[in-house]
Parts: sequence; structure tokens; C-alpha cells
Amino acid sequence: MTAAVEMMERLGQQARVAARSLAASSGTARNRALLAMAEGLLAERAALQSANALDLAAAAANGLTAAMIDRLRLTDAVIQAMADGVREVAGLPDPVGEITEMRPRPNGMLVGRMRVPLGVIGIIYESRPNVTADAAALCVKSGNAVILRGGSEAIHSNRAIAACLAAGLQSADLPPHAVQFIDTTDRAAVGALLKSDRYVDIIIPRGGKGLIQRVIEESHIPVIKHLDGICHTYVDRYADLAMAEELTFNGKMQRTGVCNATETLLVHAAVAEAFLPPMCRRLQAAGCELRGCDRTRELVPDGVVPVAPQDYDTEHLAAILSIRVVATLDEALAHIEAHSSRHTETIVTRDHGRAMRFLRAVDSSAVMVNASTRFNDGFQFGLGAEMGISTDKLHVRGPVGLEGLTCLKYIVLGDGQLRQ
Amino acid sequence: MTAAVEMMERLGQQARVAARSLAASSGTARNRALLAMAEGLLAERAALQSANALDLAAAAANGLTAAMIDRLRLTDAVIQAMADGVREVAGLPDPVGEITEMRPRPNGMLVGRMRVPLGVIGIIYESRPNVTADAAALCVKSGNAVILRGGSEAIHSNRAIAACLAAGLQSADLPPHAVQFIDTTDRAAVGALLKSDRYVDIIIPRGGKGLIQRVIEESHIPVIKHLDGICHTYVDRYADLAMAEELTFNGKMQRTGVCNATETLLVHAAVAEAFLPPMCRRLQAAGCELRGCDRTRELVPDGVVPVAPQDYDTEHLAAILSIRVVATLDEALAHIEAHSSRHTETIVTRDHGRAMRFLRAVDSSAVMVNASTRFNDGFQFGLGAEMGISTDKLHVRGPVGLEGLTCLKYIVLGDGQLRQ
Repeated sequence: MTAAVEMMERLGQQARVAARSLAASSGTARNRALLAMAEGLLAERAALQSANALDLAAAAANGLTAAMIDRLRLTDAVIQAMADGVREVAGLPDPVGEITEMRPRPNGMLVGRMRVPLGVIGIIYESRPNVTADAAALCVKSGNAVILRGGSEAIHSNRAIAACLAAGLQSADLPPHAVQFIDTTDRAAVGALLKSDRYVDIIIPRGGKGLIQRVIEESHIPVIKHLDGICHTYVDRYADLAMAEELTFNGKMQRTGVCNATETLLVHAAVAEAFLPPMCRRLQAAGCELRGCDRTRELVPDGVVPVAPQDYDTEHLAAILSIRVVATLDEALAHIEAHSSRHTETIVTRDHGRAMRFLRAVDSSAVMVNASTRFNDGFQFGLGAEMGISTDKLHVRGPVGLEGLTCLKYIVLGDGQLRQ
Repeated sequence: MTAAVEMMERLGQQARVAARSLAASSGTARNRALLAMAEGLLAERAALQSANALDLAAAAANGLTAAMIDRLRLTDAVIQAMADGVREVAGLPDPVGEITEMRPRPNGMLVGRMRVPLGVIGIIYESRPNVTADAAALCVKSGNAVILRGGSEAIHSNRAIAACLAAGLQSADLPPHAVQFIDTTDRAAVGALLKSDRYVDIIIPRGGKGLIQRVIEESHIPVIKHLDGICHTYVDRYADLAMAEELTFNGKMQRTGVCNATETLLVHAAVAEAFLPPMCRRLQAAGCELRGCDRTRELVPDGVVPVAPQDYDTEHLAAILSIRVVATLDEALAHIEAHSSRHTETIVTRDHGRAMRFLRAVDSSAVMVNASTRFNDGFQFGLGAEMGISTDKLHVRGPVGLEGLTCLKYIVLGDGQLRQ
């Protein structure tokens, strides 16, 4: 057994024991732990920042970019935000033990379902050390034990944060092993985690495509994953064009480096001539690069470059918009079926029937009518928190909140019923 | 590309196109197809039985056991039951398009979730040809396309049944490729199906452990799986002992070769002396082999063999019962935690607090109070149909009905909301 496998065996066994006790704990105890974690993060600010300084020095020595170093930095404001985030999670309703239905059967027994934790969650994330606190808070709130594996650039910061979290659990008489941190930069530890089927119920990778691909290939543990966000805004022939302009601009430009930003604009041919020229001028004025189909370039001759086929399949995460004029709603739906990453699509229309058809036909984690694609987000949807956005179909689609970290088991209340 | 991979590419592409059209179809059209399938199965009885005769002849020539040949046989009664089953599925409420919640956000947009099909389901099953019709009916009802791979012993029967199903779809103007049958005994076809991530959204293996293990190892497609049923009946110190005797007997003996039969009886020490001797006599009289712990054998000296440690981890699927006397409810919970396959457990008690504690603490697909373990079943729970019983935690636990073949996507109805 390698050192990494041995370590994961130990962490896994400890996590299972902790998960059992956490699942049986009261919501009050879990909230007390969360509030103590938040206090601990604030009280240990100096310790966190001196640990962080080690990571920052190593980052500079290793030639990380200024942007990367910035993401790594635990400023006073970042620490305050981490603590506030953990407190907010404490304030959410307790999902554990909720009975979602209970119905009598003809023989008199009641059959229903109870929401329970998944068990042990493995989270693999990159860079930002605040994920350590955010993710752990959601797991503890939902009664799950968690094993955290952060990026090696943040190892000192993550270790210091994890120590605050464990102390918070202990102060509420909950098992400190409910939050465990893989305290090594040995890459073999990730491999060992991915093979820990016996202990880990689910893996949540939070990072780039390379990480997610590795998790899928190496692990038989179920995964909640978030792949690309190639999101579409479709301006229908019956759109309110003023609204369409605002929604397109917001979807593309409100923030460009995020998964729910619009990557492709589809415009019905009947309104293209009225809609596209002012829309394009406004986007160009804001610094957005436009890549259009032939019809788009006819209507807007200035500064729209030809769209390449691969643009429709690319998550640019930048101020770049692909534009295509479509002849019909069907053509828009077919384009989305062929190119969407099944994350978020929106239709702008005043026509009820076409809105309903779009809503039903598009197979994405969130399908919208007359709203910005930027709204596909756990906070915006009212989940109160978010572990990421799932582009999977099974278990949970879209923003993963506390509910996504739980499952429903059947419960039966009888008074001696026998099967005939 | 091998022939098997080429065939799966073709089936996969056809399934995706069919799935898109089926997801958009009305419940009325899907029900019409199901009723036409049922009629077709009855009308083609002679053709089904002559195809079946080829399988039966091959089975006899290949030396299959009488029991296996019996499972293979399409008698008039089996064909009638298949047709009735498909009709019953048609009669269930349509799950597709149901909006399970819809709540306003502070900015006025409505956020909710809509139930939609998973897409393309791959089902790999063994022997019984009636699964072809049962499984396909559930998939069509829930708006999913299905690719079926049956056992090679039933290839002629399955081909004939699949032809009836495709004809039923066609008569309702639904795409016949919504139900496709892998028409080859080439084992490479299973491998190709397991690698069809691009086309298949989920694999449901219905068969023995070997099959399930192969699916998990070879495929990156999500799986709904059913592993062992090592189910426990726990007789608490506050049990009604007469009820406990009936529930134990029913759980173990009502049918022994099934996953929800009780495999282990746990008895609280305080009632063991009163409960075990008559319980054991009754089980022995019914032909059940008893394997007990030392305390059980003290109380029932006659005919109880010593339980071996591995008995507690074995799904006997036979008239064999392991018995253990436990000192406390905690000891019972710890035994279940260590040995249960997380399928079904029941407590027999009159004590409310202990019932609630058991319900919450036991992490199984169904947890019961004062009811027979034999009730963990889609029909008994009122789901109206069943694709199997999931021992997984993600997506669906326990009986998999129509809901388990669907997922929830977010829908948003706005009137121009922009993200700030």
C-alpha cells in the first residue's frame, strides 16, 4: 500500500464514522458548529494571513500570474466574506430529516420519503482557498462528512482554514473528522481519493475540464460535474426588441468570464434587420467582439468577423459573441440541440405558445423565458447557497444547493402489515 | 471501427433523434403507442410463440436447467401478462412536463422545476423475455428512448417482441427508433453499448452481480444499479412479540428468493428468551434453516447451527436465516451499519422514540417501522410500476418507477429581468 493509499484509508474510515454521527446530529448542533467556524475564521485572521503569506511567496517564486496570485490572497475582506458565507449557510433551513411526502396505502401503512445526507463527499478544487470554508459549510449543514483536496498553491492557507473548521465542529461536540483536509501536495493523493469507493459516496470536482476529465476516467464513484457553459439567447420573431436588446446585453456583458454568460445569439430572420444593427453597435461600443453568420454580416457590415463552425461549440469566457440568424423557431431549437452544453438557454418572445414550446423542448439545466441567462445561479434561484452548477442529468441539474447534497430514502410506518 | 461499434453508433444516433421527438410528444400519443403495443403482442401471439420455440429448442440443446427453460417460455399466460403490464403503464399519470414547483423571486421572475425525460436509456437484462416489453413500456411512458440488450438465450423471442413494440410506436406516429433492440448475440455489442457516452444517458443493468460489476468497470455512463439485498428485521425490547413473529415470518418466508426478504433477524436481549423459542420452532417447521449466535443457540438448543461471520454479509436468497441477539438498540444499529446492503430494514417496536431513531439512523433505500421488509417494491409502494430497486444513493433510491426515469430541469419565467 502506498503512503497516499494508506492516508486515504485512514481519512475514509474516519469520515464514515463522522458521517454517521453527523447524520444523526440535530440541526441546532450543526448550526452551532457553523457559527463557531465563522468566529474561528475571524479570530484566527492573523494566523490565516501568515499561512497565506507562505503560499503567496511560493506563488511569486513559481512565477504565477498576477491574476492567479490575486485569487490566492486572503485579504481582510476575503476572510470576512468567508465568515459571512458560513454564517449565511447556518441560517438556511435544515434539509436533513424533512419528510417530503407520506401517503397511506390500501393496507393502512404509510409510505413516504425522508431527506437524508449522502454520506461522505469528496471535493477536489483548485486555487481559491475560500472554497475550503464554503464547501465545508454546505456539507456540514446538510449532514455530510467531507474530504477536501485543494490546489497545492494554497496548501498553507487551506491547512489553516481547515484547522478553524475542525475547531468549530469540536466546540459544538460534533466529530472534527466531519471536515478533513488532505494535507499533502502529493498528486498521488488525488488518485487514492478517486479510488475510495468504499468510503466516498460522491466526488465533486470544482475546477477546469482537465480535472473533471481525470475524475471521470479514474473513478467509479458518482460525480456531480459541471462541464461547459455554452449558453444561448434566442430572439424570437415575436420578441419585444427593446427587452431583447437588454437581455442580450446583460447575458453577454454583465460578466463575461462565467459559465452562464451568453455565448451565442440566435435571431429570428423576421426581426434580424430591425434588431441586429443597434444591438451590434451597442455590443461593439462595450468592447465585445462579434462573430456573425453571412446574414448577420450583410446586416452589420462593419466589424463583424465571419463566425467559424467551432465558435458555436466554444465557451469563450470572454467578450466574444457568436451570432446566427435563423429562419424559424425550429431552426433555433435544432441549433441549440446541436451546440448547447445543456447549461442555460433563454427565449425572448411575447408569444405564449412559442415560449411554452421552447421551455419544454430545450434540454438544459435551466430554460428561461424573457430572462437573462446570467440568472442560472444558486443565489439568484433562491437556494441560499451553491456548490456549483451541475450540467449532469442525474440526481441534480443546475445549481447544487443543500438539496443536491442529500437524497430521499423511503420510509414506511406500519402496524404489523404483512405482504400477501 | 468494429462491427459492434458501428452498429452502436447507428443505434445511438437513431435513439437520440427519437428521444428528442418523444420528449416533445403528448402523453396521449405515448399512451396510444402503448395500447397498440399491447394489442400487437396479443395479436402476434403465434409469431411470438414460434420465435420462442427456437429459443426453447436451443436452450434444451445447450443443456439449460428446467428452471431456466421455464423462465424463457412465452406461454399464453405470460403473453397476456406482458400485454396487461403494458396497458397498466399506459394508465399511469404522465410524468413528463409536470411542474413540481414555481416560486417568485424578489425581482418578480418565477423560478421552478419541470420534470423531463432523461433521454436515452440503455437496458441490459438476462433471460426473461417479458422484460423487453415491461422495460420498454416504462421508458416510452416517461418519454425516453431505449436501447435494449437481452440475453442471447432469448434472442428470437426478444426480436419478435421488439418488432411488436416498434409497430405500436409507428401506429401512434411516434418514432419506431424510440425502442431499439440490439439484434445480435455478439458479446462485443455490450462493450460497445457501455462506451456509448455520446448517445446513452443512463445504463440500467438488470441481472446478476457479474453483469453489474462489468457495467461499473467498463462504463463511464451513469448507472442505476441494484446490488445485494441483505435486509434486517430488528425485534426491539418494546416490540409486540406476536406482531414481531408475524413480521419476521413474513419477511423471511413469504418468498425467499427475492431481494427484499429478511436475511438477518436481530433480537433485543430483553425479549430474546420469550421471542426466540416459538419463533424458531415456527420457522423450522416451515423448513427454514437457522444460523444463530451463541445466545440464540443457548435459548434454542435444537437445530440452530452456529452462525459464521460471513453469513451476516451474505444474501442467501433461500430459506436460511441468520439470528443475532443484541444488548441494545445501538448494537442493532451498529450491526446494520456494518452488514446491511442498504436495501431494506425494519424495526418492530411500540416505542415511538425508538421507532423515530431507527427511521432516521438507518441509511437504507427503505426503512420501516412495524412492517414486513417484503414491502420494498414499486407496486407495494404505489408507484404503479417498477424498473428495479436502486441500492444507489444518487438520483433514485429504492423502487425505480416512472419518476426515476426522469429528471428535473429549472425553468424561469421572466418579463425582462436583468442580472444586476
